[in-house]
Amino acid sequence: MYRPEIKVVDCTIRDGGLTNDSHFTTDLVRAVYRAVCEAGVDYVELGYRNSKEMFSPDEFGPWRFCDEEHLRTVTDGIDPDGTKISLMMDAHKSDVEDLLPADESVVDMIRVATYVKDADKAIHICKRAAEKGYDTTINIMAISREAPPFLDEALQQFEEETETKAVYIVDSFGALYSEEVHYLAERYKMHIKTKELGVHFHNNQQLAFANTIEGIIKGANYVDGTLYGLGRAAGNCPLELLLGFLKNPKFKLLPILEVIGSMIIPLREEIDWGYHIPFMLTGVLNQHPREGIEWMKGEKRNDYAEFYRHVMEEEEG
Amino acid sequence: MYRPEIKVVDCTIRDGGLTNDSHFTTDLVRAVYRAVCEAGVDYVELGYRNSKEMFSPDEFGPWRFCDEEHLRTVTDGIDPDGTKISLMMDAHKSDVEDLLPADESVVDMIRVATYVKDADKAIHICKRAAEKGYDTTINIMAISREAPPFLDEALQQFEEETETKAVYIVDSFGALYSEEVHYLAERYKMHIKTKELGVHFHNNQQLAFANTIEGIIKGANYVDGTLYGLGRAAGNCPLELLLGFLKNPKFKLLPILEVIGSMIIPLREEIDWGYHIPFMLTGVLNQHPREGIEWMKGEKRNDYAEFYRHVMEEEEG
Repeated sequence: MYRPEIKVVDCTIRDGGLTNDSHFTTDLVRAVYRAVCEAGVDYVELGYRNSKEMFSPDEFGPWRFCDEEHLRTVTDGIDPDGTKISLMMDAHKSDVEDLLPADESVVDMIRVATYVKDADKAIHICKRAAEKGYDTTINIMAISREAPPFLDEALQQFEEETETKAVYIVDSFGALYSEEVHYLAERYKMHIKTKELGVHFHNNQQLAFANTIEGIIKGANYVDGTLYGLGRAAGNCPLELLLGFLKNPKFKLLPILEVIGSMIIPLREEIDWGYHIPFMLTGVLNQHPREGIEWMKGEKRNDYAEFYRHVMEEEEG
Repeated sequence: MYRPEIKVVDCTIRDGGLTNDSHFTTDLVRAVYRAVCEAGVDYVELGYRNSKEMFSPDEFGPWRFCDEEHLRTVTDGIDPDGTKISLMMDAHKSDVEDLLPADESVVDMIRVATYVKDADKAIHICKRAAEKGYDTTINIMAISREAPPFLDEALQQFEEETETKAVYIVDSFGALYSEEVHYLAERYKMHIKTKELGVHFHNNQQLAFANTIEGIIKGANYVDGTLYGLGRAAGNCPLELLLGFLKNPKFKLLPILEVIGSMIIPLREEIDWGYHIPFMLTGVLNQHPREGIEWMKGEKRNDYAEFYRHVMEEEEG
């Protein structure tokens, strides 16, 4: 009934860190780590390892950098029970030499987030991270805006020039419908023959979970979720829905439900992720959510008609 | 690019009335009616015409009965601009003789909600409503729990014994995944040759919009939505997402966005519809949401692990 090859990646702290400049308390990150380990999830992504020259540690919290000593405050004394740790590095905002050799680190996998235009930077990071002993994935962001010829070229390079475990469809704008997921999965598989397909969806149109299922149906074996969908703007595929769908008996829902109730729901007092009309509109229009995020901070946040006029003007240039 | 046969039904007031015993103010219903007409939506369902012998007018608001004079307080002076009015009648909770002749009513269509076991009651209402001059649909509730042999028999009866316009898949429990939507659509079409297929989904697993798209891909031409998903428990397919997806230029999004911001969002102060873990769990378990609705009223509403144990015990009987 289930496909044992499927690897679930919880990226609550990493993608959620885009809502609060990665300022989570150690208690919260530790509770999430413990719950995800208990639930039998394959990977937990505890943040970014991005460059301190590009992100100021005065402005951004520790989970934007994930220094080894910070990671250990979270992991020490908890039995990972098979759950591995990943970090994300932005191809254009990180320095691969910031990575220790893997055998001196609690980190197992580096996921490289890239645009198609930065494919060569991503490949460089992948290769060096592999030399240092890490598994890698390559996550192609803003996929709904990438032109097929350049995408094809990048996919072929990733296939030929790296030993990466998986290449991801990342719908940063929450713009894709199921037919487009099918199309992209097939396009990826034309090039990516020796690696797995991965999927990461945003929920602007309430399609993150549905599109994840469609990705799985089309063969994706690396699938991302976050607790209660916590993530930038409309958020992500809710991990609890994903585990409810997957039938692998190694997954346990109870620790996930507990940590959502005790640690994630209270965050809603300060962070307003989830389905909101401004994010829905940027999704429908295939735009970056930043205009919606700004609008939601203003006094006219519920004046959706005005926001619609605003983004349509931008659209029409 | 678009399929002109598709009819969109807004059932905000009808399904939303399940969250507040149909106690909406006339101002709100009038604002919704006006916006839906301006948006070019095909049908607006203003409530139930259920029996006052089974529902006490002391307990339930006017939109549970939709007396003709109440409907006119909402419609008078507004140009429907092609939008028609529907009401729902529960096969087992209404008396078709409560319907005036259609030419004395503002109502155009009667949608009969039924379980498979009540198919004969539904057929009776359909026939009498048609004699009185109404269009009809038959909406088969709780479809995720119906056994195929009895479903087949009911579908064949609806096909042969009625002139109904459409027969609906109604996922009352928000339990269906896309593969099940495909299966049911194909099963319906084996029997329903001279009527349209309709779809109505609940959002317990954030799949209402996605499943509506899958229904459309499989040929459904009657599709339901509600403003901001307002409806029982987790709610419904959000109408604004549906209009964003459909490409028919007759649909206008702006009036929908305006009324959501001005009238629907403020309702969230009193009604807590939408994605919540208790509703997600009843959806995953293919149960009626009533246990989740009760749980959400209690002090332990965020103790999801306890709720999970509670419903799993019921499941295991």
